Amino acid sequence: MRFTSEQRLDDGVLEREFTLGEIPGILWTPGSASAPAPLILLGHPGGLHKMYPRLVARARHSAAEGFAAATIELPGSGDRPRSAAAEEARADLRRALEAGEPVDEIVDRLVLPLVEKAVPEWRAALDALLSLPEIGGPVGYAGGVIAIGIRLAVVEPRISAALLFAGSFVPRTLFEEARQITIPLQVLLQWDDEGNDRQLALDLFDAFGAKEKTLHANMGGHTGVPQFEGDDGNRFFARHLK
Amino acid sequence: MRFTSEQRLDDGVLEREFTLGEIPGILWTPGSASAPAPLILLGHPGGLHKMYPRLVARARHSAAEGFAAATIELPGSGDRPRSAAAEEARADLRRALEAGEPVDEIVDRLVLPLVEKAVPEWRAALDALLSLPEIGGPVGYAGGVIAIGIRLAVVEPRISAALLFAGSFVPRTLFEEARQITIPLQVLLQWDDEGNDRQLALDLFDAFGAKEKTLHANMGGHTGVPQFEGDDGNRFFARHLK
Repeated sequence: MRFTSEQRLDDGVLEREFTLGEIPGILWTPGSASAPAPLILLGHPGGLHKMYPRLVARARHSAAEGFAAATIELPGSGDRPRSAAAEEARADLRRALEAGEPVDEIVDRLVLPLVEKAVPEWRAALDALLSLPEIGGPVGYAGGVIAIGIRLAVVEPRISAALLFAGSFVPRTLFEEARQITIPLQVLLQWDDEGNDRQLALDLFDAFGAKEKTLHANMGGHTGVPQFEGDDGNRFFARHLK
Repeated sequence: MRFTSEQRLDDGVLEREFTLGEIPGILWTPGSASAPAPLILLGHPGGLHKMYPRLVARARHSAAEGFAAATIELPGSGDRPRSAAAEEARADLRRALEAGEPVDEIVDRLVLPLVEKAVPEWRAALDALLSLPEIGGPVGYAGGVIAIGIRLAVVEPRISAALLFAGSFVPRTLFEEARQITIPLQVLLQWDDEGNDRQLALDLFDAFGAKEKTLHANMGGHTGVPQFEGDDGNRFFARHLK
């Protein structure tokens, strides 16, 4: 892990860009941290530059509660090499959704390889982040891609709680993994998200094996998660990571 | 409205029992209120004595945020005269649920007359409560019976926000009224509540006409609403009643 830039934001949060091998990432740490900070991994749909405004807003919000936050670029997104197969699957998915055709096979082609590649990268990033003296753990995962969050929650014992955004398609094979999750979950669902399968999200919430799982459904479309959910997310992590 | 008893709870909350005609009720006001307090009407399934521990806990929690809280006995419950028709419908419902038979007609027989009787009583209580100098409004409704909450939210313009517990059956005719509700709603659903119809609750959430509506689904069975939902409820009302 190599830090490539560093700036202090106006609220005192330290923002550092880094690379982990060829993977770019960003780490935010609270301005005034006396003890090593618990860490929240910020999941996103890919494209760090495009996602930056939303990611930095979430990171600052988390930092205000004493959490460090970090994210990495997804395989095939941003400045990373494209995957022809993924691009094709993405186009196929768009066409199938517009035509009202079944999407299961396409979702498998699109999401499963992404999960296979991204999860080991998140775990490597976690190794590197937890070796920093200012990061203490425990660790939470927050955001989409929900399929990545599911696999991470199953295979990565250092993740103690997850706030999952049910805003993207999940291969049916991951439902079996969802049943194995026992860490506390908070699941965000945008009820009127036209690009999302609401029933699949509800089935997935039902499938999660966690004894403590909470579903928060709101209006406002895919990108319209209400601001108060940021506070709710902080409180969720405060309950489980502090 | 006639106060029949008064006691100061250990956290300073003033608890007063009252009668409104033949209807018993309880009013809780915050210990230290400089201005008239916003009011939360606490809905419940009937039986003030039995429900008292949960009601007083909710009232104290609300009072800590500066809200007054009040409740009245439901028609046919507690010390009020029983309704033979309602008792029969309740027994029919129990039998039908055990036998796995359709319940729509029984729910209509049980719930619609209750709504017809209870809602004017809640409105009369609201008249009386808002005439007290220590109560200022705006007003929220919190709790079950959700069918009563729906009707109240439609017909009572003084109610500005409602936190509804989707834990009981709702006559299908009330779905039309649900569509007319435009005040902000927070809906609590116990996901694994065996005595409740989860799909009906989800359909109902979908039907609500409110632009700001939030569903919170949790585990823990009918009576197992997690404690953090009390705080979430306070924050919901703080956003909309203050």
